[in-house]
Amino acid sequence: MSMGKRLAAEFLGTFWLVLGGCGSAVLAANFGGDGNPLGIGFLGVALAFGLTVLTGAYAFGHVSGAHFNPAVSVGLWAGGRFPARDLLPYIVAQVLGGALAGFILLQIASGAPGFQIDGSQAGAFASNGYGALSPGGYSVAAAFLCEVVLTAFFLIVIMGATHGNAPAGFAPIAIGLALTLIHLISIPVTNTSVNPARSTAVALFAGSGALSQLWLFWLAPLLGGLIGGIVYKWMGAAPR
Amino acid sequence: MSMGKRLAAEFLGTFWLVLGGCGSAVLAANFGGDGNPLGIGFLGVALAFGLTVLTGAYAFGHVSGAHFNPAVSVGLWAGGRFPARDLLPYIVAQVLGGALAGFILLQIASGAPGFQIDGSQAGAFASNGYGALSPGGYSVAAAFLCEVVLTAFFLIVIMGATHGNAPAGFAPIAIGLALTLIHLISIPVTNTSVNPARSTAVALFAGSGALSQLWLFWLAPLLGGLIGGIVYKWMGAAPR
Amino acid sequence: MSMGKRLAAEFLGTFWLVLGGCGSAVLAANFGGDGNPLGIGFLGVALAFGLTVLTGAYAFGHVSGAHFNPAVSVGLWAGGRFPARDLLPYIVAQVLGGALAGFILLQIASGAPGFQIDGSQAGAFASNGYGALSPGGYSVAAAFLCEVVLTAFFLIVIMGATHGNAPAGFAPIAIGLALTLIHLISIPVTNTSVNPARSTAVALFAGSGALSQLWLFWLAPLLGGLIGGIVYKWMGAAPR
Amino acid sequence: MSMGKRLAAEFLGTFWLVLGGCGSAVLAANFGGDGNPLGIGFLGVALAFGLTVLTGAYAFGHVSGAHFNPAVSVGLWAGGRFPARDLLPYIVAQVLGGALAGFILLQIASGAPGFQIDGSQAGAFASNGYGALSPGGYSVAAAFLCEVVLTAFFLIVIMGATHGNAPAGFAPIAIGLALTLIHLISIPVTNTSVNPARSTAVALFAGSGALSQLWLFWLAPLLGGLIGGIVYKWMGAAPR
Repeated sequence: MSMGKRLAAEFLGTFWLVLGGCGSAVLAANFGGDGNPLGIGFLGVALAFGLTVLTGAYAFGHVSGAHFNPAVSVGLWAGGRFPARDLLPYIVAQVLGGALAGFILLQIASGAPGFQIDGSQAGAFASNGYGALSPGGYSVAAAFLCEVVLTAFFLIVIMGATHGNAPAGFAPIAIGLALTLIHLISIPVTNTSVNPARSTAVALFAGSGALSQLWLFWLAPLLGGLIGGIVYKWMGAAPR
Repeated sequence: MSMGKRLAAEFLGTFWLVLGGCGSAVLAANFGGDGNPLGIGFLGVALAFGLTVLTGAYAFGHVSGAHFNPAVSVGLWAGGRFPARDLLPYIVAQVLGGALAGFILLQIASGAPGFQIDGSQAGAFASNGYGALSPGGYSVAAAFLCEVVLTAFFLIVIMGATHGNAPAGFAPIAIGLALTLIHLISIPVTNTSVNPARSTAVALFAGSGALSQLWLFWLAPLLGGLIGGIVYKWMGAAPR
Repeated sequence: MSMGKRLAAEFLGTFWLVLGGCGSAVLAANFGGDGNPLGIGFLGVALAFGLTVLTGAYAFGHVSGAHFNPAVSVGLWAGGRFPARDLLPYIVAQVLGGALAGFILLQIASGAPGFQIDGSQAGAFASNGYGALSPGGYSVAAAFLCEVVLTAFFLIVIMGATHGNAPAGFAPIAIGLALTLIHLISIPVTNTSVNPARSTAVALFAGSGALSQLWLFWLAPLLGGLIGGIVYKWMGAAPR
Repeated sequence: MSMGKRLAAEFLGTFWLVLGGCGSAVLAANFGGDGNPLGIGFLGVALAFGLTVLTGAYAFGHVSGAHFNPAVSVGLWAGGRFPARDLLPYIVAQVLGGALAGFILLQIASGAPGFQIDGSQAGAFASNGYGALSPGGYSVAAAFLCEVVLTAFFLIVIMGATHGNAPAGFAPIAIGLALTLIHLISIPVTNTSVNPARSTAVALFAGSGALSQLWLFWLAPLLGGLIGGIVYKWMGAAPR
């Protein structure tokens, strides 16, 4: 597969991840206002994020490997599954695809009466945050620990489910639903990142607060990805 | 497979899509009235729409290809996967199957005390709409953009997941859950169409407002389907 | 496989269906009382019913075919997939397994303070009903139509997903999630049966009202099963 | 595979089960307080528990068999699928992995303002309990019966779905979603254990009440596991 098509797949897949995951959070999570059970809530958002990866991995896995996430690319490199020379172009394509999705989402969201982004609110425009910008007011230390541990396990699941000894064809289900699981745990803590491209995509439009906290959502997921890749490489069977 | 059996499969599959997706919206989404969490909400409706396609595609995929949607048939034609001569009969079967499901659903729904369709309400009888008939009051421009983008990605997932390089047998899961994802994002915007047959099926019974807005739910999904088919054809690997 | 083991599988599988589906409805659907969103609601019950069949079909499908439902056995017979001589023993095993699950569920439910079954309430002890015993007050005609149509499509999905031309191994997913879909549509109408053994299992403990309406939940599902089996037999490809 | 790597997989997998399942319960189930539908509720927690096993089994199944649960190890031994000499090391690894997850979860949860564990409340820190410590106030007898029956069926599903006659590769889906189903039924009764390692992991941090009731959540799941293993061994086809 040519690098151009692989990068197009990463661009489109990360677009889909941000449009679907952040889109469901912005447009549908709290439909009708507080207390209205028609909205999809954190459960619906968790499902949406997972389904972007599940569906994107079946659509694009055979093209680019379906990373859609700089922490995944870095973790797979640390785990010996991805060449260093492809890291930068993959990450650039992911960030650009996510950012375009953030822009398109803003156009759609702006079509509702009274829509505005209040960057002083936790989770504004589906942004990630800690402290005052954490949905549950979690500290920076808790946010950092949470993002590191969950990204590490995300990579362990990815490495394990795509291992040659695992059943063929099921990896997109395992990986997508792992992202759903991660969101079921941690939306209250950081609004859940484990993906620097996803965090960047909406921070660009969510105001200065989200941008000033963006460092954590690069540092912690990348660190977690490295740890996960290395741990699995040590413990997993040799690839065949 | 004879064309008669293929059209019967498209008829029945679209019947199932409308009965299940629109049926869950009409009968169960808001059970007990506003504020009652027993109802299945937008999350349940999103799941129902996806499961109609997931189950229908396992049941009928080997008969007709399991389109159940004019935008899918048109997109697959644009992507080089479906012959032009079959477009019209497929679309007619889809529209008729959907319309019959709308009629049957009306018979069931009418069995509840006090049931009536108030066509001035957004989402009446699960109809699609924009502006005053959008569940969240979204503008016609936002509705159009949303339907185009989501239908385009629906086609990309369909083309990718059914590609010869993708794992065999999993496409119904990917495609069905892509439709769930699309609903998780966009029920508040347009009540989610991405399918002109589904929109037509309930607009026939939902009053003049839904009928007068039906043009958008043919135009935008068909345009999106074309775009998705063409994009994937360019970027995907050659079919094998 | 010996008939004894096959019947044991049908007994255990129907036990699981009733314990899981009706158990989630009785114990967890409305946890904390009206308005408490911790309860799993109709969406959770719909998922539970589907997962009993999904999991039971992977566990027992290779033993007995995993019907767990007289309407399924009858529909498969009508569709040419099940011998007439096995109908009666299968149905007896299903009814007995379901009834034991109803009894065990009653023992568990009775362990809560203040538990009692008020048979004048719709859905008491997860019973099925119409008219005054329909969760949404639906008429007997709407209930009958709904049960017939949904059971017919259940059989169509079962016949299609287990056809030799469908992808191997996925049928339990398609069939289980079809049952989830059916519940997402119709819990408000009849509390959803499509399965006479399930209806009988809880009607035995739910009071005279449920027993007096039990005829519909044998007649309509069996009729729907027959229709579904016959329709698919006509339209499906020849089995291979 | 070396025993060291197998035990590492059991350690990590049980860590994931407790972090994900108990983490979603502690952090996200009741987000925003009673009546706020943004929280994931019992349905979200049920999904999270199941997804830890689904994802963990795809990641680690080919390393250790993916038990993550002493009752599973014991049941598989009773069913003739696991050697007695591996029981103790597996169980030790499971308990230690779970306990570490409980500790990490406590660090994250403590980052929220006002967080504290009130051990007199049912379900404190996701602990299991009966009587006054049962979410729905269920008696010790109901709790015991419920845990025995559900663990027995969990083992039956595990044994059946991993049988050589079952479709290959699908067992993690069936087993993970069986755990979701079990939680959909029984969170109100005991907060759902069916896993002594999971119960121990959080009881260590949940106060004296949870510890004093921990005996039931070893005894009942182990008994249920034994019963399930023996029942399936009798009824299942001979392994091939």
